[in-house]
Amino acid sequence: MKKILFFISDSTGLTIETLGNSLLTQFNYMDAERITLPYINTVEKAHQAAQTIQWYCKNDCKNVLIFSSLVDPEIRKIIRNTKAIMLDSFETFLPQLEQALQEKHKKNIGLSHAVKDENTYASRIEAINFALLTDDGGGTKHYDQAEIILTGISRSGKTPTCLYLALQFGVLAANYPITEEDLHTYTLPKPLQPYQSKLFGLTIQEDRLQEIRAQRRPDSRYASSKQCQVECQQAEDLFKQHYITYLNTTRFSIEEIATHIIHQRGMKRKRF
Amino acid sequence: MKKILFFISDSTGLTIETLGNSLLTQFNYMDAERITLPYINTVEKAHQAAQTIQWYCKNDCKNVLIFSSLVDPEIRKIIRNTKAIMLDSFETFLPQLEQALQEKHKKNIGLSHAVKDENTYASRIEAINFALLTDDGGGTKHYDQAEIILTGISRSGKTPTCLYLALQFGVLAANYPITEEDLHTYTLPKPLQPYQSKLFGLTIQEDRLQEIRAQRRPDSRYASSKQCQVECQQAEDLFKQHYITYLNTTRFSIEEIATHIIHQRGMKRKRF
Repeated sequence: MKKILFFISDSTGLTIETLGNSLLTQFNYMDAERITLPYINTVEKAHQAAQTIQWYCKNDCKNVLIFSSLVDPEIRKIIRNTKAIMLDSFETFLPQLEQALQEKHKKNIGLSHAVKDENTYASRIEAINFALLTDDGGGTKHYDQAEIILTGISRSGKTPTCLYLALQFGVLAANYPITEEDLHTYTLPKPLQPYQSKLFGLTIQEDRLQEIRAQRRPDSRYASSKQCQVECQQAEDLFKQHYITYLNTTRFSIEEIATHIIHQRGMKRKRF
Repeated sequence: MKKILFFISDSTGLTIETLGNSLLTQFNYMDAERITLPYINTVEKAHQAAQTIQWYCKNDCKNVLIFSSLVDPEIRKIIRNTKAIMLDSFETFLPQLEQALQEKHKKNIGLSHAVKDENTYASRIEAINFALLTDDGGGTKHYDQAEIILTGISRSGKTPTCLYLALQFGVLAANYPITEEDLHTYTLPKPLQPYQSKLFGLTIQEDRLQEIRAQRRPDSRYASSKQCQVECQQAEDLFKQHYITYLNTTRFSIEEIATHIIHQRGMKRKRF
């Protein structure tokens, strides 16, 4: 029978989705049907959510699993009454935390992804604008403000990583493409030369690069096996020659690439 | 005494930071010092992490709190031996899940933010490229592919929301700015007219708008009280007149705006 996963929250549902998916990597539930019910912040909405769950349960709740983060015990109780298997992050951890911190919890709902303060928010928006301004070799005159400058050949993952660094961590991240000309002459592009210490290289395996490029421009020289092989090898040589730290992004998600960079550089993770 | 929070993970640390910060919204720990130790995936690194924690504990571990997501019990034990208060998401929930699912867990580490499959990954990158291509009124000829088109006056939150929708949920989201001319004539910009059903409006309170614009262009007409007031009012009128659903973004984080839109439109949250 098909397994059904509910993610229920009194706010966006992002926290409980993240936690639930992390736990489920340990079980054979990755292909289950997922239903997120966010903003369950009133008794009425809780009853509606419970009805939906009951509908999926029919006579048997064994295949229905609920992950929830519900601060209000009354709302939680309505969901629990469905008899589906339910794990709630607040219910589980708040008593432990109250005991450890010797403090009662506040009962505020929906604060996890709320705006914390206007200055932090402004610095996040600034980081996003910076990433757009300096994407793909743009705005090089602003490089003195950059905290990091990613560089690499076309389709090595520079743009998504910069955007993620900006959105998630508020990092001022620029990126600059390495062209064939730079590769042939083994020279760093001129705009990068004064910023050696800010540079971080991205590389990628040639077969994966070929796959990605072929999706964009099938049967082109750009996506040919030979071209991808030469560019990958020369880019790595260029990084080595100029003592630029680099990461092979082939098997990594955007989250992993970004956190590797942050970690490697000892950069501060801002919190939004 | 200053409170110290550790976030320890065998992978990126993103899951445990999200969970820990969510729980801490319920206590007076929001201003504590935060230290994330990612990639603690060997016994050796665990001992180093434990030393760092001990250094912060000095003689008293009461002010040190550890949130961790460590799959390996041996690594977890080394951290637990520090005697600081420790909450581990796997340790807490895996036994409950094993019992509920009648299944032993896999002991795989670092899967939460790993690449799940190449197709999902490609659709995420496609969404990011789409957001960049159609940012700020660009690429309107691709609107037939858009799942949503955000519209609103300058600095109402369109660009960050589109980028977040793409990165987090893989949504093809475009955005189009409303200019003074559109406002004066109460007409929808021409490129938007064929896509009424895809439109979603963003509004913002005039005082907050003024603040944001003043940071960009102080003492300009663009940032003047009068101008902000008129634009806010006229944009809202325009949305009402054309039956465009809209959201006032003033008090919302990017995460909240994006999930509101997804929820309101009944769109699928893709998982990366």
